[in-house]
Amino acid sequence: MTQVWDGQQRRIELQEVGMRDGLQSEAQFVATEDKIALLNALSQCGLTRIEVTAFVSATAIPALKDAEIVMNEITRQPGVIYSALVPNLKGAQRAVAARANELNMVLSATESHNLSNLRMTQAQSFSALTAAGAYAKDAGVALNVSLSCAFGCPMEGEVDADTVMDWCRRIMDTPGVTGISLCDTTGMAYPGQVHALTRAFLAQWPASVLTLHFHNTRGMGLANILAAIDAGAYRFDTSLGGIGGCPYAPGASGNVCSEEVVHALQLMGYDCGVDLAALLTVARYLPDLIGHEVPSQLVKAGQRLDLHPLPAGFEEIKARALSR
Amino acid sequence: MTQVWDGQQRRIELQEVGMRDGLQSEAQFVATEDKIALLNALSQCGLTRIEVTAFVSATAIPALKDAEIVMNEITRQPGVIYSALVPNLKGAQRAVAARANELNMVLSATESHNLSNLRMTQAQSFSALTAAGAYAKDAGVALNVSLSCAFGCPMEGEVDADTVMDWCRRIMDTPGVTGISLCDTTGMAYPGQVHALTRAFLAQWPASVLTLHFHNTRGMGLANILAAIDAGAYRFDTSLGGIGGCPYAPGASGNVCSEEVVHALQLMGYDCGVDLAALLTVARYLPDLIGHEVPSQLVKAGQRLDLHPLPAGFEEIKARALSR
Repeated sequence: MTQVWDGQQRRIELQEVGMRDGLQSEAQFVATEDKIALLNALSQCGLTRIEVTAFVSATAIPALKDAEIVMNEITRQPGVIYSALVPNLKGAQRAVAARANELNMVLSATESHNLSNLRMTQAQSFSALTAAGAYAKDAGVALNVSLSCAFGCPMEGEVDADTVMDWCRRIMDTPGVTGISLCDTTGMAYPGQVHALTRAFLAQWPASVLTLHFHNTRGMGLANILAAIDAGAYRFDTSLGGIGGCPYAPGASGNVCSEEVVHALQLMGYDCGVDLAALLTVARYLPDLIGHEVPSQLVKAGQRLDLHPLPAGFEEIKARALSR
Repeated sequence: MTQVWDGQQRRIELQEVGMRDGLQSEAQFVATEDKIALLNALSQCGLTRIEVTAFVSATAIPALKDAEIVMNEITRQPGVIYSALVPNLKGAQRAVAARANELNMVLSATESHNLSNLRMTQAQSFSALTAAGAYAKDAGVALNVSLSCAFGCPMEGEVDADTVMDWCRRIMDTPGVTGISLCDTTGMAYPGQVHALTRAFLAQWPASVLTLHFHNTRGMGLANILAAIDAGAYRFDTSLGGIGGCPYAPGASGNVCSEEVVHALQLMGYDCGVDLAALLTVARYLPDLIGHEVPSQLVKAGQRLDLHPLPAGFEEIKARALSR
């Protein structure tokens, strides 16, 4: 028996990643002013962390080619941390120049995924991380590292926990690194595995800044979050509308959906600090902007106590029943 | 800290309800021979309980107007319980005549939903239940009662736990009733609530046959199942492909998806007794038969260790990386 089902106003920190991990895989370009408007609206929802964009090559990810403009022109709310994904030292320098509050670098737990996703070997990525860490430390900017495929690789399959923990150790030992995200890049994580790995990680690094990043590809996103909370985690990445690509599972859901996670956790008594109605309003702008429906079920169904009218003819049905 | 994350081969009983709760709300009529073929295939998947159809008026639910033929012509597997939904005594008699192994009657925890869904008052439904209970007892057939809106009503909103427990008491005290299902009819249940209500129910009726029935309307289905397991439940309704209507949330997911639940629970070390690959094969027939995609994400994404090929040009990417 656990207390995970009763939040007791415990604080959960959510980082909104839809504007980066979500939009980066959308075919339809979202206009720069629409991105800025979305980000400004998200800043008003009580979120404390927003991943704004990625400072990558415009050829590699054309959807985010406007990174500088977006990062420079959003209206920043006091207390909100605006982060950006960076692939290397050059990206880190661009992000800092655009006043990102935090950098996020990616490294995969498998060589196949690292090469496919980043076009570098793991050794090259690690070397880029070392350089970015030194730079971030000098610049006085926080640097988080997202370890992709921490719960499995879509090409290599199972990734054993020892391999993941070895990468965690190398990352945590890198000067300049201030936090780490264990990423379920393609929705392979399951709750038993999440609980075990989160416990193992926090036993090793109890004072670390740990984030969990799940995709809902196989419907286990929320259950994975609860397993991680039960193991001691309290920081998660979520994505507005549940957008976010998974090139290896076309048609499947993307990242865990921000408004669904907030809805579930706040009902359970956790404090996400988020104005759910406001967040849901922002999510409902997405389908028009990206040109298709979003995975979010809350966008379709509404909150649990959004009531529905009695069906047509109810009074007649009732009168007929009572006359029997 | 809980042990719910580690199944340790504990047994979970799933009742497949897709052929009834799923198909009943489909616009496209599934041919009788296709229904029989699906049910025969499901009987080979290791499921121990299958809700086959509903013995209701053909006018009310035309999708299931072939109840007698289907129930009579399926090939029954030894050890599988074939149940049928019945709205009243007449339905119970029809189901028994067609050799249903178990009857399932429905009653709502709110008057608005009972009238809307069953066109009877709760008092009339309860009176029908009493008659069906006496009949089932005489006939030596099991009778389960599904209490709709046990976690909230889409028209009346919150249904307090005392009201639900009062209905449970009346149902459990009815002669002939052999089991009860607490039904989250429109996906309003959340894990904290599920855990609390399941605990309260099992504290009162520890030896009862309790089933939980969840919809995934707001993305909480699997989390609700885990909350119920943690509170002591081990029987759940699930639906092939995740089909199943929710007229109050158009476009939203239906019942919790059988293959997703089996996938998650078996990964966690629970024993559902189900051949997941076979079940997934059957689920993949559904879109053609019902004329649209199913909510199941597993149908789209495959199992977590269904691997994907290296991307095109991988060797070139690798060679280029290594040459740097």
